[in-house]
Amino acid sequence: MRNFDYQTPTRLIFGKDVVEKKLKGVMEQFGKRVLITYGGGSIKRSGLYDQVLQILQDKEIYELPGIEPNPKFNPSVLDGVRICKEKNIDVILSVGGGSVLDCTKAIAGAACSDADPWDIVTSKVPTLKAIPIVDIITLAATGSEYDSGGVISRTETNDKLAYFSPHVFPAVSFIDPTYTFTLPVMQTLAGVADCINHIMEQYFCGEHIMMNDAFMEGAVKSLVKNVKTVLEEPENYDARAEIFYATTLGCNGIYSLGNSHSGWPMHAIEHALSGHYDITHGVGLAIVTPRWMRHILQATTGQLHEQVVERITSFGNHVFGTDTPEESIQAIHDFYEGIGIPMTLQEVGIDDSRIDEMARHIAQNEGLDKAWVPLHEEDIAAILRDCQVAMNN
Amino acid sequence: MRNFDYQTPTRLIFGKDVVEKKLKGVMEQFGKRVLITYGGGSIKRSGLYDQVLQILQDKEIYELPGIEPNPKFNPSVLDGVRICKEKNIDVILSVGGGSVLDCTKAIAGAACSDADPWDIVTSKVPTLKAIPIVDIITLAATGSEYDSGGVISRTETNDKLAYFSPHVFPAVSFIDPTYTFTLPVMQTLAGVADCINHIMEQYFCGEHIMMNDAFMEGAVKSLVKNVKTVLEEPENYDARAEIFYATTLGCNGIYSLGNSHSGWPMHAIEHALSGHYDITHGVGLAIVTPRWMRHILQATTGQLHEQVVERITSFGNHVFGTDTPEESIQAIHDFYEGIGIPMTLQEVGIDDSRIDEMARHIAQNEGLDKAWVPLHEEDIAAILRDCQVAMNN
Repeated sequence: MRNFDYQTPTRLIFGKDVVEKKLKGVMEQFGKRVLITYGGGSIKRSGLYDQVLQILQDKEIYELPGIEPNPKFNPSVLDGVRICKEKNIDVILSVGGGSVLDCTKAIAGAACSDADPWDIVTSKVPTLKAIPIVDIITLAATGSEYDSGGVISRTETNDKLAYFSPHVFPAVSFIDPTYTFTLPVMQTLAGVADCINHIMEQYFCGEHIMMNDAFMEGAVKSLVKNVKTVLEEPENYDARAEIFYATTLGCNGIYSLGNSHSGWPMHAIEHALSGHYDITHGVGLAIVTPRWMRHILQATTGQLHEQVVERITSFGNHVFGTDTPEESIQAIHDFYEGIGIPMTLQEVGIDDSRIDEMARHIAQNEGLDKAWVPLHEEDIAAILRDCQVAMNN
Repeated sequence: MRNFDYQTPTRLIFGKDVVEKKLKGVMEQFGKRVLITYGGGSIKRSGLYDQVLQILQDKEIYELPGIEPNPKFNPSVLDGVRICKEKNIDVILSVGGGSVLDCTKAIAGAACSDADPWDIVTSKVPTLKAIPIVDIITLAATGSEYDSGGVISRTETNDKLAYFSPHVFPAVSFIDPTYTFTLPVMQTLAGVADCINHIMEQYFCGEHIMMNDAFMEGAVKSLVKNVKTVLEEPENYDARAEIFYATTLGCNGIYSLGNSHSGWPMHAIEHALSGHYDITHGVGLAIVTPRWMRHILQATTGQLHEQVVERITSFGNHVFGTDTPEESIQAIHDFYEGIGIPMTLQEVGIDDSRIDEMARHIAQNEGLDKAWVPLHEEDIAAILRDCQVAMNN
């Protein structure tokens, strides 16, 4: 078991009607000037936007709308930083999914620095403090509501970077599973795939701890079962709640304290895909996952190969009841395909023309040569090429 | 799934040599005047006391030694409060097991109030702030290092009360599993029993969530396996570390977010036992556990009985591989007996002379009539009487 240094100070307020019950009281502890950040119009259509303005009617409200899925440094982060500095914002209220919150974190950190915001996002300049963040999270996916990181894209350079600082943990996260009742199906699916992958990145490592294994296997099993339930019954509260609960814990480390960390190779590969093509992150992850598993099974030897076999077999056995590593890999693929996720790159509009470019970009920027199973440029290219080929033939 | 409002701000610094590596840096964020609280001489014999003084040589150090197992309001809490007020203490460093830390929490809260310290401990007067707490926890048992509560005894009245306040979460907890290498065997066993029972109190409830179930079953399974390992190999680091990890998470709620809470009936019963007789808490819990299970299996009917059967069966099945509720109950008993815990009250020197008195005390003070399976005075007396009778005949 590895040493660890863990802290997640965020307060989670989870359940039905928690915004109505507790948002006003929570916001009282911060100052008067509130920046509300959000994405498209869904929070206006759902009535959440009006509800929040009503609850905060005593505050001085500023707004940053239009934050993109795969949030962009330019214009969103830059606009947010400008508003925070001009208006001397006391607290940022992020209303929306993980992209809105990721963008909000970058704004909160960069707004407290005189440095170029890009230098904050790239950690060239350290984040020393941040504007307090409260969020109302409306999508069960990234776990951004319970971690200290975010992913920011810069279109000009095809960069998709992870930004981390202990100062950008949300102070309070409001999580009401009923917000997910009316999500488009593909958003539910992509969110579940995102979370399953977060857990797999933590599960697949060289050491493992009995209770972590059980926790992660249980969480994936819960996601697999409950996503099928909500496809049948979109307003099944308990199923939506279990999904949101699993996703919330996805990225702050609680699933795997004391595990070694393997470098999150599937995320690294997918970040290049969605950085180059702007596809949905969770869908990209679902496509990459079984190909990465197959590659590490085939490309390893000796003791590392034994570890790989053990992990893939154990994962499949506990989640899907499979016996062999090959069955485990096929089972995760078939599960994703069965719930309706497109499972080749062609289906999401990506051909093979930029594979070498993406593989080089990943190899140069993501440090995967130091992952649990090291990946070099040719490994990454092989995995991406395999993502072109259907797995059920 | 129930609504929940969860926050645990404590920083966990876990692993080999963490005190040497990080205590000095951590203590720099607080002021100069440090009260060190501790129990008997074990931290002096182990060298930890000298190490801490060496690391804190620039600080102004005060000491409260001699804190009891089952820590006493009088003299320990009162002495600590007096020192904090007289010396204007900036931070309290608790060095020892859960009893030392529990006592430290009461001191930290009461020292910031003009109210009678007993009124703070009983929550008659609310705790509005507390002196910051850092701890070096040397026993894997109570989970006090990661929660906001403590148990305080007042000998004059046979009271054993739980004190809670969000202000008494430790700021930082140092957890080095190597400290447990040289523990007396019975302390290791009692700590494991304490943690298993913490988990069972959270597991046995009317609703359950797939990933919570898996997490809790995995943690108990880990404890069952790893305690057997350390009985053979007291210095097996990974086994000691897994035990400490499971116990640390025991009481802050992370095992069971969204579960309903059942009133911790086994703890309520055991608190009266150790309040009246000063036995080891974990041993008392081990004795009570299978009798409580048997009682709720026999005393319930209808839908509640079905729930009871499901929970007991599921617990035994996942942890011990048993099939029936009776086998599950026998398995937890036999596990405890097999590792060497005395499993009747006679073996720990308690006869039946005060059973009615204890049952009345519990029924009047613990609210178990509102537990998941409600317990009245006659139920509690029956359970305590059953604790007199050996279960393997």
